[in-house]
This record gives sequence, structure tokens and C-alpha cells, in this order.
Amino acid sequence: MTDLHAAVAAIAARAAHATERGAVATYIPELAHIDPAKFGIAVVTAPGEEIVAGDADEPFSIQSVSKVFTLMLALDAVGADLWRRVGREPSGNPFNSIVQLERESGVPRNPFINAGAIVVADVLLADSRDPDAALERIVGFLRRLSGDHRVHIDAPVARSEMTHGARNRALAHFMAGYGNLHHPVEDVLRVYFHACAIAMSCRQLARAGRCLAFGGRTNGASHSAGEAVCPAERARRINALMLTCGHYDGSGEFAYRVGLPGKSGVGGGILAIVPGRAAIAAWSPGLDPVGNSTLASRALGELTATMGWSVFAG
Amino acid sequence: MTDLHAAVAAIAARAAHATERGAVATYIPELAHIDPAKFGIAVVTAPGEEIVAGDADEPFSIQSVSKVFTLMLALDAVGADLWRRVGREPSGNPFNSIVQLERESGVPRNPFINAGAIVVADVLLADSRDPDAALERIVGFLRRLSGDHRVHIDAPVARSEMTHGARNRALAHFMAGYGNLHHPVEDVLRVYFHACAIAMSCRQLARAGRCLAFGGRTNGASHSAGEAVCPAERARRINALMLTCGHYDGSGEFAYRVGLPGKSGVGGGILAIVPGRAAIAAWSPGLDPVGNSTLASRALGELTATMGWSVFAG
Amino acid sequence: MTDLHAAVAAIAARAAHATERGAVATYIPELAHIDPAKFGIAVVTAPGEEIVAGDADEPFSIQSVSKVFTLMLALDAVGADLWRRVGREPSGNPFNSIVQLERESGVPRNPFINAGAIVVADVLLADSRDPDAALERIVGFLRRLSGDHRVHIDAPVARSEMTHGARNRALAHFMAGYGNLHHPVEDVLRVYFHACAIAMSCRQLARAGRCLAFGGRTNGASHSAGEAVCPAERARRINALMLTCGHYDGSGEFAYRVGLPGKSGVGGGILAIVPGRAAIAAWSPGLDPVGNSTLASRALGELTATMGWSVFAG
Amino acid sequence: MTDLHAAVAAIAARAAHATERGAVATYIPELAHIDPAKFGIAVVTAPGEEIVAGDADEPFSIQSVSKVFTLMLALDAVGADLWRRVGREPSGNPFNSIVQLERESGVPRNPFINAGAIVVADVLLADSRDPDAALERIVGFLRRLSGDHRVHIDAPVARSEMTHGARNRALAHFMAGYGNLHHPVEDVLRVYFHACAIAMSCRQLARAGRCLAFGGRTNGASHSAGEAVCPAERARRINALMLTCGHYDGSGEFAYRVGLPGKSGVGGGILAIVPGRAAIAAWSPGLDPVGNSTLASRALGELTATMGWSVFAG
Repeated sequence: MTDLHAAVAAIAARAAHATERGAVATYIPELAHIDPAKFGIAVVTAPGEEIVAGDADEPFSIQSVSKVFTLMLALDAVGADLWRRVGREPSGNPFNSIVQLERESGVPRNPFINAGAIVVADVLLADSRDPDAALERIVGFLRRLSGDHRVHIDAPVARSEMTHGARNRALAHFMAGYGNLHHPVEDVLRVYFHACAIAMSCRQLARAGRCLAFGGRTNGASHSAGEAVCPAERARRINALMLTCGHYDGSGEFAYRVGLPGKSGVGGGILAIVPGRAAIAAWSPGLDPVGNSTLASRALGELTATMGWSVFAG
Repeated sequence: MTDLHAAVAAIAARAAHATERGAVATYIPELAHIDPAKFGIAVVTAPGEEIVAGDADEPFSIQSVSKVFTLMLALDAVGADLWRRVGREPSGNPFNSIVQLERESGVPRNPFINAGAIVVADVLLADSRDPDAALERIVGFLRRLSGDHRVHIDAPVARSEMTHGARNRALAHFMAGYGNLHHPVEDVLRVYFHACAIAMSCRQLARAGRCLAFGGRTNGASHSAGEAVCPAERARRINALMLTCGHYDGSGEFAYRVGLPGKSGVGGGILAIVPGRAAIAAWSPGLDPVGNSTLASRALGELTATMGWSVFAG
Repeated sequence: MTDLHAAVAAIAARAAHATERGAVATYIPELAHIDPAKFGIAVVTAPGEEIVAGDADEPFSIQSVSKVFTLMLALDAVGADLWRRVGREPSGNPFNSIVQLERESGVPRNPFINAGAIVVADVLLADSRDPDAALERIVGFLRRLSGDHRVHIDAPVARSEMTHGARNRALAHFMAGYGNLHHPVEDVLRVYFHACAIAMSCRQLARAGRCLAFGGRTNGASHSAGEAVCPAERARRINALMLTCGHYDGSGEFAYRVGLPGKSGVGGGILAIVPGRAAIAAWSPGLDPVGNSTLASRALGELTATMGWSVFAG
Repeated sequence: MTDLHAAVAAIAARAAHATERGAVATYIPELAHIDPAKFGIAVVTAPGEEIVAGDADEPFSIQSVSKVFTLMLALDAVGADLWRRVGREPSGNPFNSIVQLERESGVPRNPFINAGAIVVADVLLADSRDPDAALERIVGFLRRLSGDHRVHIDAPVARSEMTHGARNRALAHFMAGYGNLHHPVEDVLRVYFHACAIAMSCRQLARAGRCLAFGGRTNGASHSAGEAVCPAERARRINALMLTCGHYDGSGEFAYRVGLPGKSGVGGGILAIVPGRAAIAAWSPGLDPVGNSTLASRALGELTATMGWSVFAG
């Protein structure tokens, strides 16, 4: 079997010298300041070993990767009722498109596009005293999953999102017009924007993703190892959603090139799941034209190929 | 380990008494005549064992399942050049939508929607003397893969497709207007319609799909067993396309419920791949509203759950 | 020449007994309470004669008819610069569609769809101390044009619009995301919603429209009669916009059946212009499926036919 | 009153020296060869006087201007039944868009976009022995209206249209798929393409348009002068359609700038109607970005302004 440590180290070494790194997101000023030379990767295996390289312990803005975890909490709260308000199909449109919402009467195509995650935030509000309580729950969940109390909301990023969030505000009011938001739009957006502004490192994120790799448990050593976070069937289905919808309008491409369930964020992070084997987080701020990290995507493709980890390999 | 024979038999028994069977496709008269009570399933495992139940040896119109095999032939012919003319993203639209084609200048989103398969047919024509030669190659390929010379084109179905194919004709002329077809439209459509009209049984189809389950080879017993049909990497990538795009606008749902790469046809057949383990074909003519077989989908979901075969299970 | 008084009286008599009256708008509760049996009509001729019938002196919510007058004020303020931010083409979509805005980067197709009138409200804000000052200007303008100080904003209607305005709020934030609003969205919407909530009678509205019929002047008796409200060329061009875009996605139909520039509102009012001859206001609360008053449209068609007033008649 | 002769002469003189002439259509080779320096104009007044200037007697390809006359013949044949198969609303899309057709189930928005005129051609076929008979009727109608037997179909242009007509072929098959064409697609297209390839001069075209200016009669001197071509109401309504839909996605602009019912063609010709006063044809091959002749539009705007002919002028 190929040596995982060597593979991770080689990938980080190549990334350090990569010249094609994509363009750092500029839609909010705070993200635009990030050093494009950053690259980190962390792999957590079934027995709990952690293999890291590069800037794996530097926190970055997880942005849309947070959608995976708010979805888990929403499913905990309302179960399958969620699917009356959000679909499960790839969108075939950019992440912030409003066209589909009009055609489908305010029901977003899936929980990983912005509109869908805004509905998810609305669901979390129903179960919380106020937006701050909902956010405490989200951050608390990520602290617990990552075993690290340093996970936090980056306040300047959150403020910047609130200020520059006209398009998401439009999406939210649009869905409210169809009756698909049940709380005041600004409350819902407060939860949504702050969840996007959570800062985590690759190591923290890979740990948080373990439960999706190991049948809902935090340790894959056995069926009773670690802690049970969610039912195995739910973990499996979230993985399915990540594979079909996790990379906006580049989801097919990621499935084709990498072959793993994954969720990307415009902060440059990607969380990928190797069912039964590992959770991986990779980060590099430069993005490709559809909004996915260039180097993190490439790193995941290389690691999958080297390790034979694609879920599609026979 | 769960007994595969028992699982398949139980599924076929339940299907025989199912009351919710969906509606048989009516867009061409020939398909509308099929007995909705039919149900068949065939599983071919890595060492080549064949487990069948129900009407597994009765030929049916494979329709869009043929798109998997014409894609394999086109990739053989032109390799990655194909991707200049067809995308790899889920469409987010019905299978015969023309809207996306206009927005994206005549480049279909993927090879599994009708427009994409029409481009694939055009590619096959480039490599053949004429439409009939291209069709001989396609049928010959399926005979070889299934080890059964009885695979054939159902002439009345093909004629009916040609007669009732206004929408596909529109898609083809539309792409021709963008320069994305290189042969006379009627020649391309002749190949496309006849490939859809191929008749195969579940057993034949499962055999034909083996190479996708076993790294490009017809037998999964070892890395040198059976015959090499295509490179392992190509099999893996076709599986990725099947998972993200194989069920029209129900692809996300199939991934969520079944968790396998699969390709459905409006004849009621579905080919599903369990990488490294099995190829499965299921058939029942009644369709759900997006055009996928109700009972075949359900059977695949049950089998996957029972056997723990989802690619997303940790 | 046909007797105008007789024609108006006959139309009002027929309207009183009409059974097909359409459905009263329900999108805000205040409009839903209006008595569907209401019908009024007022015609102001070139020399200033006023012919009225039915409920011609009962105020109703002018809703989108206000868009004609806010457009006049915006053109006064910024002239042709307005057309950098709003188009002049029919939309081919419902009045509150957001699809077109996405395709055309936040530039509304014309000033008579909601998005366009929201941009117009933003322009008026630039020229005013605050939203209330902008509204005073609008109401003052209508009082002056109608010669009636009773024109006012219906406060409960305005409040109801603010509360139920999710879709318009979405349109506004969407355009803000493209940089096409320059003031705080809630300020802009305050102007927009309150302008829609202005209450006027048919008589007041017909008087306010005179300037469009008489080359920009309030009296058509001669080129120097009355007061000059706007340049003749501007009046002509606003008429052109009313004819092509004044009835949402029923503009073609109104041109075809009535043959006059006109602007309708979901309160059931329509202002129509007979260039050089008359300004007409008709009102009945029941609407057809695209949102135009059933009886007011019919009345205008009958009056035009009887009087030979269509601009398209040879 | 302004002298019409002087106005026309001045306009032609300015056009001869214009530097901004737009770009000649290139979608078929035959049109691309036309000399961009050409400019012609012809005005036929109510008593039948003809004022011409420039290349007013040189035949050009009338292209979409033919849609006005095929519509007249179709209304003759089936009357209001036509409107079950074609709408009367501006499209808000480019002239050859297929998106709207999908949204509205194969019913074109109006008879002046390509899809609508293809349905009109289908209607004419129902009333004719074969495509050639239908074309003879169209050409015969134009010869009669223009009083000139030289009106003819330009065979090389027609052939070129047939060869390069993939997009129109797609539109036709698309509508056939919805059951909105009743004859073989190639027969319908034969009529459509050949009608577009009719060659006429400005003088011939202005004469052909007289009936629309003069209440359906070929002479406007009195209500019984000339020949009755169609009912006055129909002429009025066709004018309405020309005004709202006659210039593709530049219809609003033409109404705004010129203020007359008009129909343009990509050959550079425009037919405009001054109800009760005149029919005008102008021609210059260079087009603006939406496909309307730059100089012919400008000439019509100047003439209308000079003569006070806008239907919107008070």
C-alpha cells in the first residue's frame, strides 16, 4: 500500500511551487487580503491518525464548507421535513443564481447553494431563542466535532459579509415572498453570514468531517469506536449530496477528477470524505472560475489517485 | 455477510406485488404497449457469478442506457477531445431541455442528456463509413460486452423514434447552428435513434456493465482476469458521470437514495455499478415523473441498503 | 362626429351590468377589500372639458399608474442619464420577474416594471433630502397636475405594501448587488411603496395625464394654452413607453385591442392617452390574469372604437 | 406645413455622408455582399403621391418585412383562429430565441419573430396545394399591392437561407414537437425561407404598405378611394403589432425614437406606417446590434420629427 505520509508531503511540496494558483475571492474585502501562497492539508484516518502538511494549522474562513454542518444540525432538528423546503438536485447554475428560484417557486435546488443554506439557517432559528443562540449552537457543534475550543466566528469577515451581501439578501427576500422563510429575513441572514465567517484550520475541519467518513461516528476503528454524531444512513446521504452538489457548477468536474464527496468554500477550503477511510481538508485561497480552490482541488485529485481512494474505482 | 441470492429474490418478490409502479412512457407508441407488470433484475459479481430474478432474460428497449456505451466508444475514438464539445456537469433541467443549449452556445452539459448523446453520435459517425456502419459498431460492442449475439436494434421502435423525434431533431439542428455537429443532422439522428432502440435483457445489460465495475475489465476476480475493455481511469470517470448525471433531473435523488453510479432509460431499465463488486441491471416499465423507473430505482435502493453497497457508506 | 358624452354614458351603463369583472388583487389585504362592483371613467378633452361617469370621483389606489409620474420627475431630474440605468424595451415577463434582471446584470428592461420603477425611486431620492421629501415632491406634483389638493398617500395601503413587499425587496437588493441602486434599499422602497399607495379618482388621474396628451401642456386648446409641464418631445416619448410597456405582459394585447398609450395598476385603474385629443382614466377593481383591469380595458377599447381614437387608425 | 419633398431630399443627402452605418448582416453569404453605401427612401402619401430619394428603386432582400404580408394573408385565411397558435406580445428576447418557446409550450410570442412567422407559413400551406403554390400567392399578393410584376424571389438568397438555416430549422422542429406545425417541417421552411428572400425596392415596399396606412385601402384620398385590401380594423391591429413587436428586441427603442408602427428586416429595409397619412420604406444595409438598419431607423426618426408624424405626438 502506498505510504499516506509520503503522498501528503509530496503533494504539499508540489503545491508550494505551483504557479497556477487561481484568483483569491474579492467579493468581500476581508477575503481579498489573504496571502495566495498559503496551502495546507490534513488527513484524519479511520483509527484517528492525523497526517498534516503545509499551513494545516492556520485558520481560514470556511465559508460554504459550513453548509455541511448547518445541514447536519437542521436534519437533527426537523429530519426529512427539511426536504419539503429544499431540494436535493444539482442546480446547473452559479451558486447565487436566482433564476432557478423563480422557476421553482422559491424552493432552492439543494442545501449547498446559497439559497438552500439560507433556508437551513431559517430552520435552525426555529429551534433557537435568537440568531446568537443559533450561532452558538453551530460554533459549539464544530468545537465538539473538532475537539478544539478555538473554533470561532471571524467578526470582521462576518461584518463584511453583512455589508456586501446584497445578492444573498435578494435571495432571502425572494424566498420570503414565496413563504419559504419563517423568520425575519435579517435574523436569518445574520445566522447565514456568521456561519460562513467561521474560521477553522485544515486539521480542525478534517476532524469535524470524520463523522461523515465513519458512518456517523468520530472514529472509524470499529462500529462502536468514538462518539456517535449522526445515524450512519444520514452520513451516507450527506456524502451523496456533497458529491452531486458540493462544488456549485463544478460539482460534475470534481466528481470526475477527484471522485470523492466534497464541499468547497470561496475561502479556498475543501472538505472531502473518503467513506470508511478518511476525512480530508485542503486549503489554498486561489479559486478557479466557478469558485473552487485550484490547488486544493488538485491536491485532492492527486491524493485520491495515489491512494486509490476514488469512490468510483473498481 | 448478507446473502446476495436471498436479497435479490426478496426484492423481485416484493416488486411482483408492488402497486405503485409509475406510468409507462408514451412518447412513442411502441413503448406504450409494454406490460407494466414486468420486473427483472440481474447482478453480475466480481468473479462472474450471475444472480437473476423476475423477467431478467426478457429483452426491453434500453433507450438512454445506450448513452453509457456510445460514450465509451466515443472516448475510444477521440479521447479527451470529446470534452471540447460536451460538458461534464449535471444539467438541472429536464432531459430534453433546449434552454441550457442556448445559454451555453450549443454545448450540451453532459453526454447523458439527449443533446450530449447526439454530439456523441456525431463523433462516432466521424469514425465510420456511414450511419449503418456506426450502428454496427455499437451493436457489435454490446454483443461482445454481453457475450450474446442476440443483442439487436428493435426496428419498429427505431422507426417510431424517427417519426416522433421532433424535439431531438430540434436539439440537433440547434447544435448544428452553433457548429457543434459535423455531419448531416439526419445521419446523426439515425445513429442516435437506433442506438436508443437497442433491445437487451437485464442479464445482457449487467454483463455489458461489468467493465465499469471492475476497472475496465470484464472480470473482477483479479487485475488480470477477463478482458480489458477500457483503461481503469476511464471506467472510474464514467462512473462519476453516471452518478452526477445518469438520471436526468433525478440524479441527485438517485445518489441520495441508492448511492451508486447508474444510468436510466425511459424503457424502464437502469444499469447501476458497484465499483469493485458488481454490475446490476434492473427493469420495470413504469416511470416516475422525471422519467426513471419507479420499481427499478426502488429495487436498487433496497439491494444497496441490504448489501451495504452504497459508495457513500463509511 | 360621434357624441363623446353619449359614448361615455353608454360604456358606464354597460359596465354596471357586466358579469365578467375579473378578480380583485389580493396580494395586499387592503386592496382585497375593494368592492368589485365599482366602475368609473373620466375623459378630459383638449379644450379642457371633463366628461365623467360612474364612480369617477371616488379615490382608488393608483398603484403602478404612479410609475408614469415618477418617471416624469426622474427625467426632469437627470434627463437621458436615466437610460443608463433602465432600458426602454418591453420585458416579455411578468411584472415582478427577476429572471431578466439576472440575464441583464441588474438593469431593468423599462421604467414601468417594478424593478425599473424602483430605480426611478432611487433617482428621485438623489434629488431629495430624504424619502419623505421625495414623496412630498411626488404628491405635490400630482396635486398640481390634477389641480386638486386632496390627492394623498393612503397610509394603510402603504403600510401593507411595506409589510407584504418581499418580492420587491428582493428585486431591490438584487439591483443593489449590481450597483444599480445608490441609496439604502429600505429608503428606496419607502419611496416606491408609498408612491404606489397614492389614492386618486378617475377625474384627478385624467387631469394629471393631460400633459401627455397635449404636447406637455395641461391644455390642448392651442400650443400656448394651459401650463407647460414637460417638453413636447418628452411627452411623446413617455407615450411611446406606455404603449410598448404600460400593461406588463399584456402590453401587446392592449395595443392590439385599444390602440392607445396606457398605464395600468393592480388597483384596477388605467390611464390612457389620446395624443392631441384627450386623457382618459378608467377604473374597476377586477383584474385579468396578467394584472390589468378587465372592465377598464374593455371600456377603453369600446371608447376608442366608437370615437375612432386608436393611434393606429388610418 | 413642412415640405415633405424637401425633408426627404435632406434626409437622403445626410445619409449619403453618414459615417456610422452599422454592419451588414453576414449570417448568409448572399447578404454579406451588399454594398453598405446604399440608401433609399420612398414615401407614398394618402392621395397616392410618391416621393423618393437615393436608391429607392433598387431591389433588396426584404427578409422579415415579408412577415407583415404573410400575416395579412394568414389572417385572410383563418382570421382570429391564428391567435390560438401565435401570441401578440413583444418577446423580450432576440429574434431567433428558443427559450421562450420552451417556457410557453411551443407557442411563439408574436408573428414577427421567426418562430411566429414559421407558424404563419404553416397556416398559408394549409390553404395551398404545395409550398410553391403558397409562394406564388405571397409573391402575387405583393405584386398586386405594389402594382409591379417585377417583385420576385431572389433564388440565390433563398438557397442560401435553406443551407444556413439551422437555427430556424431547430425552431420549426421544436414547435412541431409541440404540435404547433401541421405540415412537414421542410415544406413549411421552404415557404418561410423563400418569403424572406423576396426582393423589392423601397418604392414597391411603400406601395405595398399603403393599405395599412389607409384603413385597409390602397388609396387614402377618401374612404372609397383605391382598392380594399383588408378590413380597416385589421389594418389598425397589424399596425399595433408592428409598433410593439416589429423591431425584435429593439421595438421599444424604435417606438421611443421614431414613434411609428414599423417592421424591419436584416436586409436593411424598414417599412413604416403613418396612419392616415403615408407609408414609408427606407433601406440601408448596415445594421445595429439588435438587427435593425442603422440609417433607415435614423431616417425615419428624422422624417417623423420633421413632419410631426409620430403617433404619440399631441
